[in-house]
Amino acid sequence: MAQFKIQLTLAFDGSAYHGWQSQRSGRGVQDAVQAALGKLLGRPVTVVGSSRTDAGVHARGLVAHVEMDAETLSIPLGHLPLSINALLPDDIRVISAIRKPASFHARFDASGKQYRYRVWNHPAMNPLLRSQAWHVPRPLDLAAMREAAAMLVGRHDFRAFTSNRGDLLEDGVRTLTRCEIRRKGAEITFLIEGSGFLYKMCRCIAGTLVQTGEGRFAPADVGRMLDGRDRKKAGMNAPAHGLVLWKVYYKK
Amino acid sequence: MAQFKIQLTLAFDGSAYHGWQSQRSGRGVQDAVQAALGKLLGRPVTVVGSSRTDAGVHARGLVAHVEMDAETLSIPLGHLPLSINALLPDDIRVISAIRKPASFHARFDASGKQYRYRVWNHPAMNPLLRSQAWHVPRPLDLAAMREAAAMLVGRHDFRAFTSNRGDLLEDGVRTLTRCEIRRKGAEITFLIEGSGFLYKMCRCIAGTLVQTGEGRFAPADVGRMLDGRDRKKAGMNAPAHGLVLWKVYYKK
Repeated sequence: MAQFKIQLTLAFDGSAYHGWQSQRSGRGVQDAVQAALGKLLGRPVTVVGSSRTDAGVHARGLVAHVEMDAETLSIPLGHLPLSINALLPDDIRVISAIRKPASFHARFDASGKQYRYRVWNHPAMNPLLRSQAWHVPRPLDLAAMREAAAMLVGRHDFRAFTSNRGDLLEDGVRTLTRCEIRRKGAEITFLIEGSGFLYKMCRCIAGTLVQTGEGRFAPADVGRMLDGRDRKKAGMNAPAHGLVLWKVYYKK
Repeated sequence: MAQFKIQLTLAFDGSAYHGWQSQRSGRGVQDAVQAALGKLLGRPVTVVGSSRTDAGVHARGLVAHVEMDAETLSIPLGHLPLSINALLPDDIRVISAIRKPASFHARFDASGKQYRYRVWNHPAMNPLLRSQAWHVPRPLDLAAMREAAAMLVGRHDFRAFTSNRGDLLEDGVRTLTRCEIRRKGAEITFLIEGSGFLYKMCRCIAGTLVQTGEGRFAPADVGRMLDGRDRKKAGMNAPAHGLVLWKVYYKK
């Protein structure tokens, strides 16, 4: 029985990893965090994450928890990030560590998540963003994309926007609270926030919006995609490396 | 004799290079651009850059020129970036190519340059910026830094702020037109613009400003550094990987 839990907020460059989740290959971000924390605590630990992320997806604020017995934490909690970071590879960082009651669960208690998807929209890619943005060379119609994005906001069955087989999925209903498109020069950022997300849902939304911007779909088509609940009717999955898990929300 | 010149605007991630300038090792950005363009044109070419950049420094808008005879350019100029980019490694990109008179010179005609230096000011580094920002973990006094920055703006002898030996330097006088400090969360950007820069001058300015923010120097010390013209009295050189050559200006 845990006496308490530690909530970790993590940032990582996902380029070198097969996603958050622990892998037999050891190439999950979770493996690296567990190894560093295990070394620090002198015992094997399980770090439970708020989210599985796909291979190549990044994080600015993934939340995770670790079960703790009071006696195993020999350093002040405020020093924990520095100590773990010294043991982690430089593509993973613990941003903060706070104490939570034993009942806290990083995944089950999450009330919402914010993702950001970045596109570089210029004929030539920006080399400094090549591992963090999707290169879309052709001009995009942002007005059409914003119209399409607005249709996705709200409570919908997002079955058409997931790579889970829709016919096997019991409940595809999710609530999107924000789907905003920001442009700054050639850099376009989608801010996608919701109570929960289906498998690859963010990447399918980003891909569909870009294809709307390219004229492949009309904004109204996006409403029809939702209604049709058929993955084959929605757009492509945007590549993983443009996606960042930005923030995880908890009640209170 | 060149009939005309082509002006190239280049962006690169400098992490893997020993600076812009051609190296015996072949690890200059210039070497890679010359190899790609030479392949495209079917003859050896020299690409003259606006600026030498240090090893590890990045660029968003380095300008270069290439001498051309009308008959050697068999593709439309507008297609040139795409064609060169297909031959370049993905950490270098040609953003644009325009025609210039034979008299144009990328270095001698430059009337000014803008550099940006990025700092990540948080106890934990942002892994997504680890090759593009200097990690400064301690809190910085931005008001003091801005006061110091204001002292650097204008026409001064910047001998104290270069890694050339000051006593060997004939003319250390340069004009800084902007030295602004922008903060967005943990990200601090120095925007440094001037008519010309001494060797490592931007990195010495960024390092001195950060050390001012840490309380190592008072803002007034920075004025005294300028007056003293002694490199030993100014602050440290900030690491190369935080610096980006952002833009090169030309008259007209």
